[in-house]
Amino acid sequence: MKFLVGGSGSGRAVYAVKGDDAVDLTALDPAVGDDLMALITNPALAKSVVAKVEGAPTVPVASITPALPVTRPGTIICLGLNYTDHIKEGGYDIPDYPALFMRGRNSIMAAGAPLVRPSCSDKLDYEAELMFIVGKGGRHIAEADALDHVFGYTVFNDGSVRDFQRKTHQWTPGKNFDDTGAIGPFVVTPDEVPAGAAGLKIESRVGDEVLQSSNTANMIWSVAQTIATVSEYTTLEPGDLIAMGTPPGVGHAKKPNPRWLKPGEVIEIEIEGIGICANRIVDEKDMPSKVAAE
Amino acid sequence: MKFLVGGSGSGRAVYAVKGDDAVDLTALDPAVGDDLMALITNPALAKSVVAKVEGAPTVPVASITPALPVTRPGTIICLGLNYTDHIKEGGYDIPDYPALFMRGRNSIMAAGAPLVRPSCSDKLDYEAELMFIVGKGGRHIAEADALDHVFGYTVFNDGSVRDFQRKTHQWTPGKNFDDTGAIGPFVVTPDEVPAGAAGLKIESRVGDEVLQSSNTANMIWSVAQTIATVSEYTTLEPGDLIAMGTPPGVGHAKKPNPRWLKPGEVIEIEIEGIGICANRIVDEKDMPSKVAAE
Repeated sequence: MKFLVGGSGSGRAVYAVKGDDAVDLTALDPAVGDDLMALITNPALAKSVVAKVEGAPTVPVASITPALPVTRPGTIICLGLNYTDHIKEGGYDIPDYPALFMRGRNSIMAAGAPLVRPSCSDKLDYEAELMFIVGKGGRHIAEADALDHVFGYTVFNDGSVRDFQRKTHQWTPGKNFDDTGAIGPFVVTPDEVPAGAAGLKIESRVGDEVLQSSNTANMIWSVAQTIATVSEYTTLEPGDLIAMGTPPGVGHAKKPNPRWLKPGEVIEIEIEGIGICANRIVDEKDMPSKVAAE
Repeated sequence: MKFLVGGSGSGRAVYAVKGDDAVDLTALDPAVGDDLMALITNPALAKSVVAKVEGAPTVPVASITPALPVTRPGTIICLGLNYTDHIKEGGYDIPDYPALFMRGRNSIMAAGAPLVRPSCSDKLDYEAELMFIVGKGGRHIAEADALDHVFGYTVFNDGSVRDFQRKTHQWTPGKNFDDTGAIGPFVVTPDEVPAGAAGLKIESRVGDEVLQSSNTANMIWSVAQTIATVSEYTTLEPGDLIAMGTPPGVGHAKKPNPRWLKPGEVIEIEIEGIGICANRIVDEKDMPSKVAAE
């Protein structure tokens, strides 16, 4: 199954995607709600509503404005260095444990939404990544059981403000600017892709310019190994998001000059069989203010 | 005002503490709810219920089992190196920007709850820290206005599993073991302490053994500077938690041998005028399993 959360006039809903068309699952059963959490936490609901899809009315996928698949994920964990060649281009040694960092909720937004270049930096970079959504939670999950804990796979652009990422040895600020991490639009269930979503072509592009082109087979740590490693220290919960790191070709490492994202450009991340996450770069000064009203 | 969230027989409530006694604010007005979020987001409610405290019935503070002040904080941000002498004992250079990392919700628990030493490591360490709770949210908060965004101050033990903290350059795993970050029990409003909670004695102890002893006046980045720095990249939200780093004396740097926490010990963190956060170390194997039921 391929899911899409989004709005289409009458509020936000969860859709099942069939080619260019989509069935409104929330209309079929209001218990589905307005993001994937109900389907993630209630497999019986998922099964019953999916059984109603055949023959249900459809709308064009193109008429749906994507929203985040999980509106308020509990935890967002990212692997920093998970493709050998990308580690070398960043000047890092190949580690024997994944570099893990976290993003906060304000740093993420849906595919299609503005990807904001902050006023304080012009060093905005893209990172094409596979992301998975945790289905069944747990701690101390064995690698052999780990893929049973995946609800689905989606596309992630781990947008990074490089000078703030390297202010200190901890990457947090550069990975947490508001509205820099794009997710979606589609979430595909594990039965639609190879085990662990390995062996899929992954690319980033601006127009005809291919910036990154690799394959998820080149990941050092697999999805299953990542689940085992992360759940050694923390209890994973349904709806948690885990991003799997990026292949070579990021902007800061381009020669002879870095290739920063500029306002007006549309950055596309594509993963074979999952979809394209496209976001236009917008200057922060052109966004509505987020300063809280007094 | 000094607040305490906790349980006392008939469910969880928010209390106003007066010496050894406490008034159940949730009983005075059910809109107060079972953590501080309603008071944080609704200053009018806070004002109206505080006005009813005088003369209201009390219970002994000792009868209340502390709970987290904010049950589901959106974001937990921690400063890693914020006391000059602690930076030197860790072998780091003094940076010109704070080292910032994040903790997930499963890593925190209330004062009084077990602080869990994981089965995979015996290198469990304490860190005495001032923590503040964001009141009014915002982005691009000026340092001069920043203290208006603090709801209150509490005590934090940034429990760290040192070998996992240094698996790679990113500290996330060692700072995110389940049930290692203790918070509370009391939250004091800014009017009860000096501006930015600076100039307060801060200590960690096991029994009579004083492990850390310093003063929040020794912080490199003040609370106001931290709010300005963090809100440069992310929108702060009501109920977000920010921890201000720890002074010298952490266990891994003790000479001639590291001083790791051992099961059965009670680690106390005290900050003058705020309170004592005390937690007993419990071996993971003696805790109920967190593995999700099938």
